Amino acid sequence: MGGDFAPAEIVKGAVQASRELQIEIILVGDLEKLSRELKKYKERGELPVVAASEVIEMDESPAQAVKQKKDASINVAVSLVKDGKANAVISAGNTGALMASALFKLGRIPGVERPAIATEFPLPTGKVLLLDMGANVDCKPKHLVQFAEMGNLYARHVLHIDNPQVGLLNIGEEKEKGNELTRQAWPLLKQAPINFVGNVESKEILRGKADVVVCDGFVGNLILKFGESISLAVFQLLKNELSKGIMNKIGLAFLYPSLRRLRKTLTYDEYGAAPLLGISGIVFKAHGRAKANAIKNAVRETAEAVKEDMVSCISKLREKT
Amino acid sequence: MGGDFAPAEIVKGAVQASRELQIEIILVGDLEKLSRELKKYKERGELPVVAASEVIEMDESPAQAVKQKKDASINVAVSLVKDGKANAVISAGNTGALMASALFKLGRIPGVERPAIATEFPLPTGKVLLLDMGANVDCKPKHLVQFAEMGNLYARHVLHIDNPQVGLLNIGEEKEKGNELTRQAWPLLKQAPINFVGNVESKEILRGKADVVVCDGFVGNLILKFGESISLAVFQLLKNELSKGIMNKIGLAFLYPSLRRLRKTLTYDEYGAAPLLGISGIVFKAHGRAKANAIKNAVRETAEAVKEDMVSCISKLREKT
Repeated sequence: MGGDFAPAEIVKGAVQASRELQIEIILVGDLEKLSRELKKYKERGELPVVAASEVIEMDESPAQAVKQKKDASINVAVSLVKDGKANAVISAGNTGALMASALFKLGRIPGVERPAIATEFPLPTGKVLLLDMGANVDCKPKHLVQFAEMGNLYARHVLHIDNPQVGLLNIGEEKEKGNELTRQAWPLLKQAPINFVGNVESKEILRGKADVVVCDGFVGNLILKFGESISLAVFQLLKNELSKGIMNKIGLAFLYPSLRRLRKTLTYDEYGAAPLLGISGIVFKAHGRAKANAIKNAVRETAEAVKEDMVSCISKLREKT
Repeated sequence: MGGDFAPAEIVKGAVQASRELQIEIILVGDLEKLSRELKKYKERGELPVVAASEVIEMDESPAQAVKQKKDASINVAVSLVKDGKANAVISAGNTGALMASALFKLGRIPGVERPAIATEFPLPTGKVLLLDMGANVDCKPKHLVQFAEMGNLYARHVLHIDNPQVGLLNIGEEKEKGNELTRQAWPLLKQAPINFVGNVESKEILRGKADVVVCDGFVGNLILKFGESISLAVFQLLKNELSKGIMNKIGLAFLYPSLRRLRKTLTYDEYGAAPLLGISGIVFKAHGRAKANAIKNAVRETAEAVKEDMVSCISKLREKT
């Protein structure tokens, strides 16, 4: 029931995933609305529906709403994981509420102080895993180290990146650069059991200098949303510019398929879902503007995390360090 | 002598400015190199040259280099302002060294605790003034308030924006959102003698929600450089995509003038220079990758700040508050 295009696009994406990926997807929410959406699709896989009478809106205070609305779809969905009735949960709704519900019901992996949200940001050359993307706005150096260790394990075991390069988002390359937090985190990251490649400037993110980049959640959230808005703004500028005059219109007709493809790489459609790393259960956040295709991709990635037993991977490292 | 294309592009831009703007520009640096560059241009205005035997490189530690290299071009240029031999100074070199030299020689405007770097970021609809862009990586709430007041005055008196809207860069709209710094700064900004429009999310920056947006220098620097790199990356993606196949090549031929124009708005060429607000003198930072046209624009903007007596404007408010 969460996200800007729920429930229509969420159900559509789930139906596509059930068909293409042969995964049983439990839909949680308003029975009547979900059944109405489901009826639109004749060919579909297993899609049982579980009732939840309440919805947490995007502008509600997360912790409070999660406590008060016991029958909110997000609470019911997370409970399915807690009770072993589902392997994982995906939500496109209120991020804070998802994290709060996951913390209350599933808890943290022992040793993890602060679970973090990890987003795969698309690059010209591939993807980069950025964390934390907003769960922890004020961080201590040791929290950045945990983000780095969790990001490293997720990249290695779930994204199948061999010996991932892990970097610290910073305003300069040298270890003395940065604010108090990053200057203190640097030596700790250097000692951590990861392939630490040092500071990564924001302009280096897109050049793929590291596979995993850590920062506090305040900075991460700002960067992520700025990145999204600026790619779309550039595309808009381009469209405006290219629709001026007859010469351009002729040119555009030739370029149309390419522009469509470009647009696709710049929109949320191709974005993956973001895991809540450090939670004792598999919880993924889909983009609030996710449409069917993005939801299908989210299911695929979440299924991979289930297959690779993401929680055990992260638990094991915490025991070692 | 500073910046990636010094001295050739700096001299070229200064020559253009001297011709088009009728402003006398003193070039400071290696006499031989500067004379050789100047000889390339027959038609030019007044361009006296002042010798400086040293250069501070981009990777030097700013405060140390400024103290040790007394005859560095940046030190000599700032001294011209201190001694009343120039009205303002522009540098495309090491930002930290420029700030350090300005602080040592010109000092702060009384009442200003932390001078800040203010950059005009291009929007689809105009420009937004962002500060601080990197001079102050660890800030207290009161520093953000001073940035807001200085940005407000600069926008009003130098950029000629009537009653500028001033916002706080944050990860949510509500005043309770954000990290410790922004949560504490919000009520102080609300009481400040500015037109405070509240929090501005990073995705709202490009929509022109405010004329002036304040943040700490760590966040500002990350955002600014990420913005630059992402617009260029999108343009690159576009170029790669559009050069595939014969249909696209035909289309491209029609679109060439438009793409050139678009490229111009996405590069540093059209960027203005960034004032060091709060310094007791007029000091502007040009982009490190500034070419002639950007230097000419920097001269124009700096001249406007001289004409409007930027330092007095900022000094007056500090007396009132």
